[in-house]
Amino acid sequence: MRLTKTIDELRVIVKGRKDNNNKIGFVPTMGALHQGHLSLIKRAKNENEIVVVSIFVNPTQFGPKEDYKTYPRDIERDYNLAVESGADIVFNPELSEIYVDEASTFVQVEGDITNKLCGKSRPTHFKGVTTIVNILFNIVSPDCAYFGQKDAQQAVIINKMVRDLHMNINIIVCPIVREEDGLAMSSRNIYLSDEERKQAIILNKALKIVTEKFNDGEKKVEKLKSLIIDTIRTQDLASIDYVEILDYNNLKEIEYIKEKSLVAVAVVFGKTRLIDNVIIG
Amino acid sequence: MRLTKTIDELRVIVKGRKDNNNKIGFVPTMGALHQGHLSLIKRAKNENEIVVVSIFVNPTQFGPKEDYKTYPRDIERDYNLAVESGADIVFNPELSEIYVDEASTFVQVEGDITNKLCGKSRPTHFKGVTTIVNILFNIVSPDCAYFGQKDAQQAVIINKMVRDLHMNINIIVCPIVREEDGLAMSSRNIYLSDEERKQAIILNKALKIVTEKFNDGEKKVEKLKSLIIDTIRTQDLASIDYVEILDYNNLKEIEYIKEKSLVAVAVVFGKTRLIDNVIIG
Repeated sequence: MRLTKTIDELRVIVKGRKDNNNKIGFVPTMGALHQGHLSLIKRAKNENEIVVVSIFVNPTQFGPKEDYKTYPRDIERDYNLAVESGADIVFNPELSEIYVDEASTFVQVEGDITNKLCGKSRPTHFKGVTTIVNILFNIVSPDCAYFGQKDAQQAVIINKMVRDLHMNINIIVCPIVREEDGLAMSSRNIYLSDEERKQAIILNKALKIVTEKFNDGEKKVEKLKSLIIDTIRTQDLASIDYVEILDYNNLKEIEYIKEKSLVAVAVVFGKTRLIDNVIIG
Repeated sequence: MRLTKTIDELRVIVKGRKDNNNKIGFVPTMGALHQGHLSLIKRAKNENEIVVVSIFVNPTQFGPKEDYKTYPRDIERDYNLAVESGADIVFNPELSEIYVDEASTFVQVEGDITNKLCGKSRPTHFKGVTTIVNILFNIVSPDCAYFGQKDAQQAVIINKMVRDLHMNINIIVCPIVREEDGLAMSSRNIYLSDEERKQAIILNKALKIVTEKFNDGEKKVEKLKSLIIDTIRTQDLASIDYVEILDYNNLKEIEYIKEKSLVAVAVVFGKTRLIDNVIIG
């Protein structure tokens, strides 16, 4: 088990093990690990000989008014959690190790896929995500990389980047892990006040209600969206950012649910923006 | 020796050979091979066990009014030239093999480095170049990749992309190869009329004159630029696109030549745009 802060050292370790035809599984994180992250690490450990976990709070995916500076950082805690879950190597680089000499190269998935949903209220977010994920892929050279379904749009975008740029990496998207009361795990849940935390379960509730309604035969997107909106609005601290139902594969607008569809919501409680989603159809 | 048109086949061949710890040298080209390209292939053969040459006329690096459709294509001729010069594998994919399913991911080096020189008159060119080179690097996974000094700005930009994205590839920039009369080799030289071809040697002449003047002690960029402009203007078919003298490492403006500097010219003859450069200081 190794903690490394430098690219050169990481490459030496990975290369040494890769020569034995060992498969490398990779879990990129920003730290503040919760059960969602740990489920990715466990899955990676099941499917690969070597698991690399990166912990790097990436500034370029935060907007100017977002929580880059206050994002929770505790490398000792995260390191221990990662190791307990199966990480063989934890990569925790300094900012200057990743972004050198006025770095100005960006990887961007253009078009609707990045402009809608979270891309609307966070216009530079996904450009930052695809760039750092591309960089980390180049550093780690994994066979498989693991992402959470919670960040559904991110998963679709990274899949597209990997396909478009012909990166030879298998992207594996793992199920959302939830608190007992149904709230999707997120490093930002700790920001919620007690009252906000109570009301926040409405996201999951709304998604459950709409899934039931769909299973009962309602396929019209407009009706299903209204149902979600009405449900969330029962909570006085909830302010809706978006409620969308889109084709899961390309995030295109649909009128009726025929194929696999993504039901995605973003709701702001005070200063905290929460997202959740479910796939139906 | 193998000619392959598919990514999967190329990967199988490269992987098979890479397992023996063979080094892979890569020469990306758009075909229409001339002695400049062949010098890259020979150099790659000297420094690597396996040499991959790609031949792919990349549409995204051509502007809407440029010569994508008429760019010279002769795969049989190019294949034979590449093999004679030391290529082990020639990769000649169809357009649809590279750009699949409405590909919309781009790799872009932002800022001055791409906006000036050729970037000014070809605003989308380098975005297309960095994207296709990134894609080809992901497909070939070379240890070393070879580029010509003739496309000086391209070489600087690709070096920056590789550094910024931490691609584990050694970029090697090789000297300009010239016709006997000094004209830099280019796949576009064949577009020149007899009279244009005669006058085109003025680019190299102007660069030689300015190098002499610099060696004689003139360090002021403004004076050296004027000398180049005056020299090129002696030819009535020559229309100057740019004459620039910049810091070689970052392409920043300079007033006096102190460090390694790039003297770069672009001149249009009829429908043909020629570039040339020299490094001084």
